[in-house]
Amino acid sequence: MDYDTLFQAQLDDLKAEGNYRIFAELERRCGTYPRATSYEGGGTSEVTVWCSNDYLGMGQHPDVVGAMVEVAQTCGTGAGGTRNISGTNHHHLLLEREIADLHDKEDALLFTSGYVSNWAALGTLGARLPGAVILSDALNHASMIEGIRHSRAEKRIWRHNDPEDLNRHLSALAADVPKIVAFESVYSMDGDIAPIDEIVDVAEAHGAMTYLDEVHAVGMYGPRGGGVAEERGLMDRITLIEGTLGKAFGCFGGYISGSAALCDFIRSFSSGFIFTTALPPAVAAAARTSIAHLKTSHQERARQRAQVAKLRARLDAMGIPHLPNPSHIIPVMIKDPVKCRQISDTLMHDFGIYVQPINYPTVPKGTERLRITPGPLHSDADIDHFAQALNSLWRQCALARAVA
Amino acid sequence: MDYDTLFQAQLDDLKAEGNYRIFAELERRCGTYPRATSYEGGGTSEVTVWCSNDYLGMGQHPDVVGAMVEVAQTCGTGAGGTRNISGTNHHHLLLEREIADLHDKEDALLFTSGYVSNWAALGTLGARLPGAVILSDALNHASMIEGIRHSRAEKRIWRHNDPEDLNRHLSALAADVPKIVAFESVYSMDGDIAPIDEIVDVAEAHGAMTYLDEVHAVGMYGPRGGGVAEERGLMDRITLIEGTLGKAFGCFGGYISGSAALCDFIRSFSSGFIFTTALPPAVAAAARTSIAHLKTSHQERARQRAQVAKLRARLDAMGIPHLPNPSHIIPVMIKDPVKCRQISDTLMHDFGIYVQPINYPTVPKGTERLRITPGPLHSDADIDHFAQALNSLWRQCALARAVA
Repeated sequence: MDYDTLFQAQLDDLKAEGNYRIFAELERRCGTYPRATSYEGGGTSEVTVWCSNDYLGMGQHPDVVGAMVEVAQTCGTGAGGTRNISGTNHHHLLLEREIADLHDKEDALLFTSGYVSNWAALGTLGARLPGAVILSDALNHASMIEGIRHSRAEKRIWRHNDPEDLNRHLSALAADVPKIVAFESVYSMDGDIAPIDEIVDVAEAHGAMTYLDEVHAVGMYGPRGGGVAEERGLMDRITLIEGTLGKAFGCFGGYISGSAALCDFIRSFSSGFIFTTALPPAVAAAARTSIAHLKTSHQERARQRAQVAKLRARLDAMGIPHLPNPSHIIPVMIKDPVKCRQISDTLMHDFGIYVQPINYPTVPKGTERLRITPGPLHSDADIDHFAQALNSLWRQCALARAVA
Repeated sequence: MDYDTLFQAQLDDLKAEGNYRIFAELERRCGTYPRATSYEGGGTSEVTVWCSNDYLGMGQHPDVVGAMVEVAQTCGTGAGGTRNISGTNHHHLLLEREIADLHDKEDALLFTSGYVSNWAALGTLGARLPGAVILSDALNHASMIEGIRHSRAEKRIWRHNDPEDLNRHLSALAADVPKIVAFESVYSMDGDIAPIDEIVDVAEAHGAMTYLDEVHAVGMYGPRGGGVAEERGLMDRITLIEGTLGKAFGCFGGYISGSAALCDFIRSFSSGFIFTTALPPAVAAAARTSIAHLKTSHQERARQRAQVAKLRARLDAMGIPHLPNPSHIIPVMIKDPVKCRQISDTLMHDFGIYVQPINYPTVPKGTERLRITPGPLHSDADIDHFAQALNSLWRQCALARAVA
């Protein structure tokens, strides 16, 4: 059997439908974010990155870089084992305390990624709470869906951001059934935000625990960067908050935070936590520094919001359609995978602007888009250049304008 | 419903059976490995680590640390996105090329951990090759088991390291069924090594692809550290080699290596690869430096083998029973979870020796052990101290001696 031929046939299908992914090879330049060196086409050129999830540019903050450098030099490059077998470093525990404090919870638990934290935590909760039912928002992230599937618990999908539909599903379950309501605060691709207060009201009324993914919100919302639940004064009513160190905190890794018993439970029973090498201590130290900084520094968030507002206003003025939402994510809808790739390529080659085309399976087919994430390090001149580039492309390609 | 009470009840069960895990809080000290600062009991003390998977101490190698520091300072602390959305860094591609060269394959693909690489690659292969059957060695790692389960492909378990049993299973399958033979080279807990040549003979005879996990072997075996398959001249007959950057290479992350079509297939279809933030470029640079070093430097492997042989000889002379195997792993069998923990505690408190007790679920109940991994940085005096400590404990606790 020729396996390569089998693989190639499926890759050819992807290419034919315009969904084959080409990664942009970049080298972000510390100290000059959002500039990066692009290695496209054999040579190198300078580009401005407009689609990073390092939303606040913390990955180049001197204190964060300094912490990584210092701990690499004092502890070395790796943890040397799983958390259980020689891999628990002092810096992991310092970071877990910092995270627990961020969310005002008893404890926190680190994972090797946000993906793994969702997969492992939901997988373990659903599998080990006998008879548990997981109630999952219809637009939850792939990592949550995989975790729920992994758990083999009964799953009920409620309509996206619809507390009434959640209430209907919960009402159909017996009082003594363990229930887990799983949802996100900021949804990554549309940038909409959940009605957390109403969802929590409903969950509490039915004795359900709440599982909130704040990966696109931690560092960004709330007076100390605790997320949308902090901003809305709801953190103490969420059973488990899941977050990432790889987006606004500019580093790498994921976590959950909740009661001591909850964190100990996941720590003790989760395959995806137990059987994997711990994060490098230097990464943990950098992440802790970033979290601590954003607990007291507000300028990054303030400037980021200002730049998001400026770009939105420019797009509106030019009639370039984008999904309205209350978050920091600006989705400019193209609705065709091939066109989306072409626009992205032209932005890169003609304007030095890098925005990755977002195609299936990240978004449903027919909703292809440019997902733009302005940050505090984008200058007003950057915004001006970007807006003019889009305007020129809209004219060239005869793309539809939004009607005022 | 009081969820914490549900969690606590299961934790209490774990404690009652002696399987509750307590992590040792350490701070490895770069430049003085295998020494570490222990934070047990509120104060700090110096311990010697005897159970690390940083088998060769590469985590403190000046070139490896230097690469991490340099790239943290030039690129920042995080990748800033998934591989598809702004997160592919030049250093990821350099590392993938280094890995492909290590295994003499067309390409390689990075993952956030070895766990995720197994879970994602087996999960994707089993799910997307129509009608595929995965033939899995009975002692495969948790990450492979989870990946196979995730794939929902038909699974056949063959007896551990038994090519004849594998042959029986393969013979029962039709010629046009895609078949994946999944196994490891060095098994972590017993330290035994697979008869790779016979397994490959059998797989080839039935037109099966081979999936080999070399996480405990890369860097350690073979003239360039390519693993047991390299040592035995079999790399070109393995379809997919899976490895880790977090053990002998002293860093963090996992990978697969194989044909360009195979790597592109996993890259294009695997949820666990697509929907997760890329490794920090600084980690990738450190790992690449470590791999490149071990391709040409043999002294770490030679010295490691010498120290393993010395400790084995000392244990034999004292009649301390350990599983015989041809690898670098020395399992001293205790066969009781409570006793295993007590011995580990006494070694730590009375002798400054850290060996984590290995209990269920990492090993089956009744096979609890100390898993000892001597390295090139353990001195002869360290070995002497360790052997005397074990001898003294064996006398105090009236533990069974091996009969010569």
